[in-house]
Amino acid sequence: MFEFKSRDGLGRIGVLETKHGPVETPNLLPVINPNQLMIPPKEMSKKFGTSIIITNAYIISKKADLKERALSEGVHSLLDFDGPIMTDSGTFQSHVYGEVPVTNEEIVAFQRDIGTDIGSILDVFSEPFASKEKTKKAVEETLERAVAASEIKGKMILAGGIQGSTYPDLREECASKMSEIRIDISAIGGVVPLMENYQFSALVDVVLSSKKGLDPSRPVHLYGAGHPMIFALATLLGCDMFDSSSYAKYAKDGRMMFPDGTRRVKDLAHQICHCPVCSDLTPEELKEDEVAIAEHNLHICYNEIRMVKQAIHEGSLWELVERRCSSHPDMLSALRKLKEYWEYLERFESTSKRSSFYFTSVESLYRPLIMRYNSRLLERYSPPTKKLVVVFPEASKPYSRSYVEELKDISSMVDSAFLVESVLGPVPIELDEMYPLAQSLVPETLDVETQNLMKDRTAEFLRNIGFENIVHWTDEESKKKLGELDTKPVERNMDILRLRALADMQFGKGAGEALIAEDVHLVKSKRTGKIRNVLFGDKHLLSLRARDGMFTLRAEGAKVLHDEFPSPRMRVIVENEPGQFNREGKNVFAKFVKECDEGIRPRDEVLVVNEDDELVAVARALMNREEMLSFSRGIAARVREGIPES
Amino acid sequence: MFEFKSRDGLGRIGVLETKHGPVETPNLLPVINPNQLMIPPKEMSKKFGTSIIITNAYIISKKADLKERALSEGVHSLLDFDGPIMTDSGTFQSHVYGEVPVTNEEIVAFQRDIGTDIGSILDVFSEPFASKEKTKKAVEETLERAVAASEIKGKMILAGGIQGSTYPDLREECASKMSEIRIDISAIGGVVPLMENYQFSALVDVVLSSKKGLDPSRPVHLYGAGHPMIFALATLLGCDMFDSSSYAKYAKDGRMMFPDGTRRVKDLAHQICHCPVCSDLTPEELKEDEVAIAEHNLHICYNEIRMVKQAIHEGSLWELVERRCSSHPDMLSALRKLKEYWEYLERFESTSKRSSFYFTSVESLYRPLIMRYNSRLLERYSPPTKKLVVVFPEASKPYSRSYVEELKDISSMVDSAFLVESVLGPVPIELDEMYPLAQSLVPETLDVETQNLMKDRTAEFLRNIGFENIVHWTDEESKKKLGELDTKPVERNMDILRLRALADMQFGKGAGEALIAEDVHLVKSKRTGKIRNVLFGDKHLLSLRARDGMFTLRAEGAKVLHDEFPSPRMRVIVENEPGQFNREGKNVFAKFVKECDEGIRPRDEVLVVNEDDELVAVARALMNREEMLSFSRGIAARVREGIPES
Repeated sequence: MFEFKSRDGLGRIGVLETKHGPVETPNLLPVINPNQLMIPPKEMSKKFGTSIIITNAYIISKKADLKERALSEGVHSLLDFDGPIMTDSGTFQSHVYGEVPVTNEEIVAFQRDIGTDIGSILDVFSEPFASKEKTKKAVEETLERAVAASEIKGKMILAGGIQGSTYPDLREECASKMSEIRIDISAIGGVVPLMENYQFSALVDVVLSSKKGLDPSRPVHLYGAGHPMIFALATLLGCDMFDSSSYAKYAKDGRMMFPDGTRRVKDLAHQICHCPVCSDLTPEELKEDEVAIAEHNLHICYNEIRMVKQAIHEGSLWELVERRCSSHPDMLSALRKLKEYWEYLERFESTSKRSSFYFTSVESLYRPLIMRYNSRLLERYSPPTKKLVVVFPEASKPYSRSYVEELKDISSMVDSAFLVESVLGPVPIELDEMYPLAQSLVPETLDVETQNLMKDRTAEFLRNIGFENIVHWTDEESKKKLGELDTKPVERNMDILRLRALADMQFGKGAGEALIAEDVHLVKSKRTGKIRNVLFGDKHLLSLRARDGMFTLRAEGAKVLHDEFPSPRMRVIVENEPGQFNREGKNVFAKFVKECDEGIRPRDEVLVVNEDDELVAVARALMNREEMLSFSRGIAARVREGIPES
Repeated sequence: MFEFKSRDGLGRIGVLETKHGPVETPNLLPVINPNQLMIPPKEMSKKFGTSIIITNAYIISKKADLKERALSEGVHSLLDFDGPIMTDSGTFQSHVYGEVPVTNEEIVAFQRDIGTDIGSILDVFSEPFASKEKTKKAVEETLERAVAASEIKGKMILAGGIQGSTYPDLREECASKMSEIRIDISAIGGVVPLMENYQFSALVDVVLSSKKGLDPSRPVHLYGAGHPMIFALATLLGCDMFDSSSYAKYAKDGRMMFPDGTRRVKDLAHQICHCPVCSDLTPEELKEDEVAIAEHNLHICYNEIRMVKQAIHEGSLWELVERRCSSHPDMLSALRKLKEYWEYLERFESTSKRSSFYFTSVESLYRPLIMRYNSRLLERYSPPTKKLVVVFPEASKPYSRSYVEELKDISSMVDSAFLVESVLGPVPIELDEMYPLAQSLVPETLDVETQNLMKDRTAEFLRNIGFENIVHWTDEESKKKLGELDTKPVERNMDILRLRALADMQFGKGAGEALIAEDVHLVKSKRTGKIRNVLFGDKHLLSLRARDGMFTLRAEGAKVLHDEFPSPRMRVIVENEPGQFNREGKNVFAKFVKECDEGIRPRDEVLVVNEDDELVAVARALMNREEMLSFSRGIAARVREGIPES
């Protein structure tokens, strides 16, 4: 029912199938008040490209005339909209008014009977910072209601509310139990008060602790999230759908939404928006026109959704989020919260991206991409020698070009490893072209936390390797040591060192030795002199991509790693029968994946094997293990070369 | 010829009078290629509100037919545009081609003769990072040419190019010598290569070292600045006019401009813009339509100009700049450069603003507003006692409410001063409602540099006062000390302490004692209990503004300070005759200001006196000293109360 086509971190561009057609996500569902159609849904669809809406089944059920019409003609006719409609259940009203005079079963059946595409259970709204006792009860009751709802939902897509207040453990528990229940969409609830009070860092806790427990193949709806400020952040955290009446509520109050915050029309001395509505109106005129403000709000919201999609497409969603989070201190608090979750986020983070890495503040250095680089370096990297390392300061990239003379001179004197203390972490010279090290931009001057982080990361790396001698190139005293050392220069093939180090980083420790023999044959670009292909005899093992300085694994290389690494390392294990199709070069569909190395990350090169551990293809993963195992739709890995039965 | 109506830092919303009507600044002058009108100026005016354009007189002069038409019908007819036209002189062509076959006198005379509104001298383009020797010559030659041009300019407004490569001393020298020459607009040149290479921090050096030497009453044009990324920054640095052909050049190359950078149309998978052009076209369609991309670029540029104006209006230009600088590491480098100039920037920084202070990164703490607060605190603040200070950690604002119980308890035990170690700097409890301390938002978690800065600033403050005892409220050991101290509680009137501390901070040391007697009469708000007015007997000395927690000085208060402080402290000295009008409540015009306290900052309360130091009015300054002395147009101080002759 749901699959994704593109991703960046937990953010994804997906498609949800409904009775009334497919819906692309991330998407915004404008709340339609059935009592008062400020902008009719059909018009929304024409003006803003609205493809799905949400309305409140509880409100419809309370008004006799609406109820009757909905039951007789269906909700699509009632709202005069033939795209997918989601309905809410009255949960939010129970938060506002304390109680609602309707049962879960009644409202779920009602939603089903009026032909809703996506219905909601009547979950129990757990207020932020409520007592743990009360929250536990709300979670239990919610889960029971979800079971009951799942039994009567019929063909309606069902959204199960994830509750748990601001208790990460209860959120995660609710989420993982909900994942066992036969609902279709995970809907994170109880968050409106957090958003109203700008408690965005608490929102991060709520969403991520929920996500940890959720089945990754179900789309995630974030109830009540309608401000464009948080679309990028919420998408990065793995939310796929948003709904909100804010566009209209804000308009009634004369407030215009922007991706960097809210502004009152009356405070505008200049027209700062050129959306199709605002480009025709002065702030003075806009002030008098509630509908125009609502339309402005929708234009901004949908444009931001497209901006988020573009960022996913480019692999620059983190950059967009960091930019958005620089607009308000409370958004910055949310950004700063993310580093606590890096280990979870890392599991979903691609190993390479289309776009460069931009340092926008020290927070950039806690992104999962950088945390992973630094931790992999400790686990996977082996230096050419442990006798001596010369540490250079940050320079322009690639470092081996910046320090070409120094490398030559020192290598002719002593046997040394080389390291650059870079902003992103310590970079052994062999790895200086690997993504994101060469594909990154950092500012000229560094804040104190960045400086400390660089020092700490380098110190940890040096301690971990245990070099006998360390020479800091900036330190004249330390440099003198070079002449006094009792080491002799050693002739080393830099190409081989580079390839082995990269293979270890990319495929795991030991890959370098296994793949790159001393007499490997290297094909270099005539123009740049850079290695493009690695062969052993006539066997094409690897290609080296210019774009990101990383390997593409070829069939022959895959065979080497398959022999070298025991199962399940680097493997995506597929059922035997579909495995035959992979041998022919067909992609690996998630539904046929039986098991998978838990170290696999999106965009990793993987070995596709059948249940007998026979190599059937070499592929690029699009999912990690938990996704491959949970999705029943979509491509788990894009096959590059099928490997015929031998 | 030029005056400003609104300001934020060096940024200003101004009006420049020309033969073809007034031009509001900041503004963008799109470059019109006389050989090829991609978008005719008249159409620009209709579509984008273009009110002024720039074209190249040198290019016109080179083509016989254009030259002839320009000379016979005038440049306005040639371009079919009846708004103001600025012309460039060929300087940029000399940068591109090495030489131009025209003299300064020829091209200035030509510009005058074709009816240009704003002509440019033929300054000598000084390449960034050129030799100092060569740059010096370029500066000298430029200054000579400016003198020659000023003698033949006629009624044409003349822009004098400020050169000096990347040498701050030469830029400043060129600027200050140019300020002595009879030109009208200061035009910073030689910066296109810096912008092309994203050397934005060098651009900051160039612009600010030029600004330091410039006559502040002349508008500043930044040649070749046409990317919306830098409009906010350049305006904050004091540039008023931009010109560029980038909108068209980028379009030819398929590049779309945005305030957060440039994107290639071909890389767009989603339509991320909803300007009037883009909302009708898909990226696919846009790709084929060069003119549409150029129009998009202009829509974005003009919208950004309006955004900058709105930020000036709100007093949030720093926030906007910080947001924009988070979009690219090289912009961040520029932002980080600003702190080196804080003392210069501070002279132009208002003492209060409409909008709250947003912490967006540690860079926010180096803004002139915060640097000034911390340095004034050292100069102006006196504690109620030096025996003991209790230091509290950051809390929600206002601090005296957060710590109300602690303050009561401790005060009943000992005689103590109270301090909060806040993100913005140390805050004595008496000052906790003063702008921007109470009107600021900071994130929950702090980076290391912010933490260090807080500690350092507090330590410096404590050292400066020399308290006998310091108790850190977070430190249980230190807290114990309280019981062991040999001090007795002292009954102190907190209202009096607050008012005196605020008066010292706002008006200077000694103002508190002079204005606030022990038996002063306080009028408090019935609703909030906060002090609103301060009287002595029936004399209304001060009002206290709820919005920013600062004083409005009343006539009787002004008299007290006039007696207390010797001239020129707090004074704006006006000529005797116009001073009589100020007595009647008329505003102080810059052209009548003879002298001024150099400590006065925009929005400061000031004493308006005549040449005999007789107090004629109390006013709020809109300018600082150097502006009051240089502007011949505009209001220097807005009079609140005139003071009749006694």
